[in-house]
Amino acid sequence: MIPAYLHKVQYYETDCMQIVHHSNYIRFFEEARIDFLEKLGVSYVEIERSGYVVPVLSASAEYKSMATFGDTLAVCVKFEEFTGIRFSFSYKVYDVATGILRATGKTSHCYLKDGKPVNIKRALPETYESMLGQVGLESQLS
Amino acid sequence: MIPAYLHKVQYYETDCMQIVHHSNYIRFFEEARIDFLEKLGVSYVEIERSGYVVPVLSASAEYKSMATFGDTLAVCVKFEEFTGIRFSFSYKVYDVATGILRATGKTSHCYLKDGKPVNIKRALPETYESMLGQVGLESQLS
Amino acid sequence: MIPAYLHKVQYYETDCMQIVHHSNYIRFFEEARIDFLEKLGVSYVEIERSGYVVPVLSASAEYKSMATFGDTLAVCVKFEEFTGIRFSFSYKVYDVATGILRATGKTSHCYLKDGKPVNIKRALPETYESMLGQVGLESQLS
Amino acid sequence: MIPAYLHKVQYYETDCMQIVHHSNYIRFFEEARIDFLEKLGVSYVEIERSGYVVPVLSASAEYKSMATFGDTLAVCVKFEEFTGIRFSFSYKVYDVATGILRATGKTSHCYLKDGKPVNIKRALPETYESMLGQVGLESQLS
Repeated sequence: MIPAYLHKVQYYETDCMQIVHHSNYIRFFEEARIDFLEKLGVSYVEIERSGYVVPVLSASAEYKSMATFGDTLAVCVKFEEFTGIRFSFSYKVYDVATGILRATGKTSHCYLKDGKPVNIKRALPETYESMLGQVGLESQLS
Repeated sequence: MIPAYLHKVQYYETDCMQIVHHSNYIRFFEEARIDFLEKLGVSYVEIERSGYVVPVLSASAEYKSMATFGDTLAVCVKFEEFTGIRFSFSYKVYDVATGILRATGKTSHCYLKDGKPVNIKRALPETYESMLGQVGLESQLS
Repeated sequence: MIPAYLHKVQYYETDCMQIVHHSNYIRFFEEARIDFLEKLGVSYVEIERSGYVVPVLSASAEYKSMATFGDTLAVCVKFEEFTGIRFSFSYKVYDVATGILRATGKTSHCYLKDGKPVNIKRALPETYESMLGQVGLESQLS
Repeated sequence: MIPAYLHKVQYYETDCMQIVHHSNYIRFFEEARIDFLEKLGVSYVEIERSGYVVPVLSASAEYKSMATFGDTLAVCVKFEEFTGIRFSFSYKVYDVATGILRATGKTSHCYLKDGKPVNIKRALPETYESMLGQVGLESQLS
């Protein structure tokens, strides 16, 4: 089992509504996605060192309930889709203490080299095979 | 005409891909939305003073091209929908110098009082009438 | 021994100089300070629940070397001074992998109730005694 | 007269103490510094294009009073010192509506090329002369 990513809510992540500012969930998705990839053996630092970047093409979040300062959140990531060029992840954010769902979300991505989208199947066949095998994997609350 | 909201990209808004970090667009949407409402005569500060909050229920962004440090962005806002309870805005972010589209997005919202969703038609009839009349309004690049 | 607080550098914390944006160290100090207090048995959430806030009166950082995406930082906190009203912490941020010093800093604080500074000795004698005994304590890299 | 830089406090810049989070003043200093340099004819974007970066060596802030969502702040910048290698700015942040001082601060900087500090007098004699002539300049509330 791939364990969910844990994030403790910081004071600077709250806003004057006294909850986590909604934009931060997009950042929690990023934290969790990079952690998830690391647990699958994929180092984002190394991807960038080999000349690629993996920008976010789209991001969305649905806010279900409110998190506050000091809460510990668990972010579960699922590798949803891979077209050979574009790929996407979905996210579920839970409050660890209560199990209550805080938010869900989705992001999509591609590989870029020299500013241009990369056909992963042709340019990075090993990466392609490895990614194909990982579609459907997800991290979970233990 | 309601003029678009202008945002100059700050150094701290960029990331090591040397572009604006994608999460910041969600913040630009918020800046532009509050500015848009102000131009329609709606003060968010006063809404909160009267005991309501207007949380974000969902937010999404599609990233079309990359903005970098020092760019001036124009955020056009459109009041898209109003069900009497839930309402939504859409956004288009342009680079002012070139007119190139950087991102599009959407957010949805409701009024909350004491943590509970408010039926605006019943609880705030004047606000309801005023909001109904504003559906479809949008800000624009001059 | 009180262990140092660990922070993994996130992508969104970097800037287009491809290093951690300097403003984020002020946030790392806050993360580490709250963690340090928790390890001493002081819950910031409970302080606020009892009607106090503990604002930052001053903050400073000296940047010694540059941290980049993916680095793990250790923040060592020391409770430096306590006048009975005002108190201060100092910070040392190290790269965990190499032991290289990234930054040092200092913050000062007071208790506020209803917007006014609190003389801790008079208003919170138990807190006063407990704080006096903790001056000089520090967290450390293991 | 060089006019002060104006910054409207955004919702996402507040924290659950319902004031501007203290770390954001370090960001306001950056916004104001870059704006100040631009008004003196110095483009930070061009500095970076010519292969230099200007990191922050130290930053400090003293918080005098609290700013809240929707406030307009004026940041006055003063070019304080220039040693030929290191240079510093000081800042005063006022609430525009009331003239109340919110914060003061200071930052110091140097030029770096290929990761090494640059002796500006030797490496950039024109920049050196120009900077010497600007020491003491400051922006002001009109």
